[in-house]
Amino acid sequence: MTRRVAVIGAGCSGLACIKTCLDEGLEPVCFESSDDIGGLWRFKENPEPNRASIYHSVIINTSKEMMCYSDFPIPAEYPNYMHNSLIMEYFRKYAEHFQLTKHIRFKTTVLQVKQRTDFSHSGQWDVETENSEGKRQKHIFDAVMICIGHHCHPNMPLQDFPGIDSFKGVYFHSRDYKTPEQWRNKKVVVIGIGNSGGDIAVELSRFSKQVYLSTRRGAWILNRVGDNGWPLDLSFNRILNYAKLLLPFNVFCSLGERALNQRFNHSLYNLKPKHRLFNQHPTLNDDLPNRILSGTVQVKPNIHRFQGSSVEFDDGSVVDDIDLVVFATGYSFSFPFLASNVLPVSGNKASLYKYVFPPDLERNTLAVIGLVQPLGAIMPISEIQARWATRVFKGCSKCPSVAAMLKEVECKQETMARRYVSSPRHTIQVDFVDYMDEVADQFGVRPSILRLFLTDPRVALSVLFGPSTPYQYRLRGPGKWAGARQAILTQWDRVIQPMMTNGCNHPEPKRSVLVPLALLATALGVASYYNRNSLPSILQDPSALLDRIKRFVPAWGAGSSS
Amino acid sequence: MTRRVAVIGAGCSGLACIKTCLDEGLEPVCFESSDDIGGLWRFKENPEPNRASIYHSVIINTSKEMMCYSDFPIPAEYPNYMHNSLIMEYFRKYAEHFQLTKHIRFKTTVLQVKQRTDFSHSGQWDVETENSEGKRQKHIFDAVMICIGHHCHPNMPLQDFPGIDSFKGVYFHSRDYKTPEQWRNKKVVVIGIGNSGGDIAVELSRFSKQVYLSTRRGAWILNRVGDNGWPLDLSFNRILNYAKLLLPFNVFCSLGERALNQRFNHSLYNLKPKHRLFNQHPTLNDDLPNRILSGTVQVKPNIHRFQGSSVEFDDGSVVDDIDLVVFATGYSFSFPFLASNVLPVSGNKASLYKYVFPPDLERNTLAVIGLVQPLGAIMPISEIQARWATRVFKGCSKCPSVAAMLKEVECKQETMARRYVSSPRHTIQVDFVDYMDEVADQFGVRPSILRLFLTDPRVALSVLFGPSTPYQYRLRGPGKWAGARQAILTQWDRVIQPMMTNGCNHPEPKRSVLVPLALLATALGVASYYNRNSLPSILQDPSALLDRIKRFVPAWGAGSSS
Repeated sequence: MTRRVAVIGAGCSGLACIKTCLDEGLEPVCFESSDDIGGLWRFKENPEPNRASIYHSVIINTSKEMMCYSDFPIPAEYPNYMHNSLIMEYFRKYAEHFQLTKHIRFKTTVLQVKQRTDFSHSGQWDVETENSEGKRQKHIFDAVMICIGHHCHPNMPLQDFPGIDSFKGVYFHSRDYKTPEQWRNKKVVVIGIGNSGGDIAVELSRFSKQVYLSTRRGAWILNRVGDNGWPLDLSFNRILNYAKLLLPFNVFCSLGERALNQRFNHSLYNLKPKHRLFNQHPTLNDDLPNRILSGTVQVKPNIHRFQGSSVEFDDGSVVDDIDLVVFATGYSFSFPFLASNVLPVSGNKASLYKYVFPPDLERNTLAVIGLVQPLGAIMPISEIQARWATRVFKGCSKCPSVAAMLKEVECKQETMARRYVSSPRHTIQVDFVDYMDEVADQFGVRPSILRLFLTDPRVALSVLFGPSTPYQYRLRGPGKWAGARQAILTQWDRVIQPMMTNGCNHPEPKRSVLVPLALLATALGVASYYNRNSLPSILQDPSALLDRIKRFVPAWGAGSSS
Repeated sequence: MTRRVAVIGAGCSGLACIKTCLDEGLEPVCFESSDDIGGLWRFKENPEPNRASIYHSVIINTSKEMMCYSDFPIPAEYPNYMHNSLIMEYFRKYAEHFQLTKHIRFKTTVLQVKQRTDFSHSGQWDVETENSEGKRQKHIFDAVMICIGHHCHPNMPLQDFPGIDSFKGVYFHSRDYKTPEQWRNKKVVVIGIGNSGGDIAVELSRFSKQVYLSTRRGAWILNRVGDNGWPLDLSFNRILNYAKLLLPFNVFCSLGERALNQRFNHSLYNLKPKHRLFNQHPTLNDDLPNRILSGTVQVKPNIHRFQGSSVEFDDGSVVDDIDLVVFATGYSFSFPFLASNVLPVSGNKASLYKYVFPPDLERNTLAVIGLVQPLGAIMPISEIQARWATRVFKGCSKCPSVAAMLKEVECKQETMARRYVSSPRHTIQVDFVDYMDEVADQFGVRPSILRLFLTDPRVALSVLFGPSTPYQYRLRGPGKWAGARQAILTQWDRVIQPMMTNGCNHPEPKRSVLVPLALLATALGVASYYNRNSLPSILQDPSALLDRIKRFVPAWGAGSSS
């Protein structure tokens, strides 16, 4: 029986794994190569090789009620969008509350993770580690959880930039960017309009003489401050998710794009991509439009070539005297401590069943946690993956056959290729609610809305019409948390409390069900219009109708499968 | 006959005065106490006493097509909202193009401006100056234009802050704030939520540990980036202005407040004032909501008292270890070189006929230019004031009797007191279009929309439905500019051009007349509803109806009065 679990990394995923192992009666041993917890979120003045690194001003782009661990709400007084220093404080509270730190061996690097010779029946792993004094150690584990994230290895495609060798200014990857002061009155090119590129361009534009933001494709820009000032991600509820599943993809994109263009016309701002809103991982940036309108950020196409200190763009325009180029060109991931046959990675793609299990191992005792790029927060995703993985380790939850898993992996990759712009950035995309539900389904913790309406209608309404907060996955099943109900019913209070800084009375959040219901009705109408040709066949074969219904309201029946 | 005019100050108002004097065949002599033009807009690392001073990052909050001098459009490639360094560039181009600099005596301070003994018939002034070497000089001028702005004397009401003497941190007025770097990881209180207070709070919040923004009244927050990303002030057209005149004040405020709350709920963000939207000079700030939502700026009520390094607010909350307090508490104005009987100032109030002429002088040869706080840009206002004043100096335009002027001044002050929250900040408020039209009326340059529709319907449509750009006041009358028509017809091109930075095709600006027309129709409907009780009396006395019509469409008949 599985007992000892190696957890590699003590970042936001590793912490959730240690905690989950303890919940499940397993013995976690976490190896962390640095001297502290937090991973990506721990700001350090000097980036270290093969380790994630953030800039000083990073503020997370998911709000606190959406990014918390599902049984440990973020303190009510914390702001909705937290600075990295506060996120670290939250992690420390989490580690302290559940006494996680004693299970972590700091300054210990994992050199190798190898199946034992008897793997096919024991499922065990040989793990070799090295501490900071160079002392190596060999361990045997019943299972391994890899929690190293996907922001370790900067992707720096210099080969795509002719003349970069001749460039006279400074260039570095966004991971090496820390603060803007030293670039006062300089001219800067930022390459890439992901979240880092956008943030760094905006921040530098307040100091530098001019910032050019170079983007091949443009981007749809979302903002943290949603309608009426509520955190944007709180408006993504299950009703909206049903509408998304029901509406034709292009119609759903058009609705979203229309709303974004109302804020600022993406064509006018040179940002309109050829692709649709949900074809790409979106960029969140509240400040960019104002910086573009004041000309301090100029949007430019791809770089054609460098020459001395000049940069020529694809449209033929040239800018001279560039002092700095920031490559905000993303990251790639790899698993250097694993034999390549265990988990092959190529083109930033790894074959993983539901992004967690290598599908073709004889025993499912290796799990990769947090290797997703969600439209939402990664912490609750890592946590639910860990909860599932430990259930699998223990044999309480079963993975399907190798063939079935391989087929699903292939199918997912095809779906992703169809939906997303082809890019190394889009190999591990997941939609937050869909993916949370999917993993939750594997071990019976998906909220059953039908049952909730019968037993606890107040919570049911919150789950259906409110934000899809992680607490929903603690209402039932293994890992059920007695505080989940209360956490759901008080979530809006925790949203409002940090704003109550001057003793005023605050407005009630609008919990009207009218707008989402109208949207759902519209979606149903449009869907039936678009599907009107298939209506006769559905009438002939009612099971097709059931399939369709199951596709968009699977949660309603979830209770019965567990 | 008036020949020689003293212009005091070479900032944005002084430059317009020199230029206008030259246009009118007068001889301007401009005295500028510093060594350069630009006034407020010239950034200097170290503020100088009795001189305006800005921080490094200041970007103007009116867009380029609304802030330019009426016969000198800002270069097409300049961004819509200009950084102070670009505004200086524009002023330099203006000074160079019209050869203004040779009329300026730099490093020359005006010590005294005094009516000559024969003032009652000559209208002349004795002016005494001192250069940087201490050499004094006496001059005689036929007229004087005072262009010293109203941002020279910081208002620092320390007496209202008990315990400030015991405060252990640093405190200064916003004019002494330059850059944020040195306040990294410090705790800061910013007092006042005007444009400076908002800007400084937001900027410091990216560096400091925590910013507390203390405001007695709260504020309605506008942003530069308007609907669909167009500069906000371009949407303030004449139709909207008619709607404002027609609709009951509270209805018009409600419409505006509703739009602002849709962006972010001012109650939720602790900013909702007790007063209505148009009861206060608005604050422009695009970044503030995002900073409040991330908690890096916390909105606080008024300060109750200081104690050591702690600050206690009116709601009883206390914050400790404050390192810096910035008093963004505005400015007061005065005219130290004038005898107090010429132009008495008390409580930041001066008696000026249409904010330009002291009403009780025997001769109207003294004009104050730019002493207004517009809901819009000051440059075109100063310019039109200068155009009117020079016409008055020359006798081509007449001021009414002293009694009539005094009565109007009193009447204006009453209107202002009724409309605005009582504050030294609200003594010189003007609405941009209303005031421009009012001054333009004095010397016959107000655009006659009726005549335009008959002679040049294309321009008429632009004037009516487009932004109220300053070129409109160069279409006719004294100072008519041949380029005005073209400038109006190409104004949207200059808005778009700076955004065309990647060789893409850009969208046509939406010039639909439907929305403004619908608004006007609604306004007419609501107005007639609110005025339904006066309908019978209007039918009995048609002249009342004519008066009412004249009140809201005065521009239509302007052509006939000149």
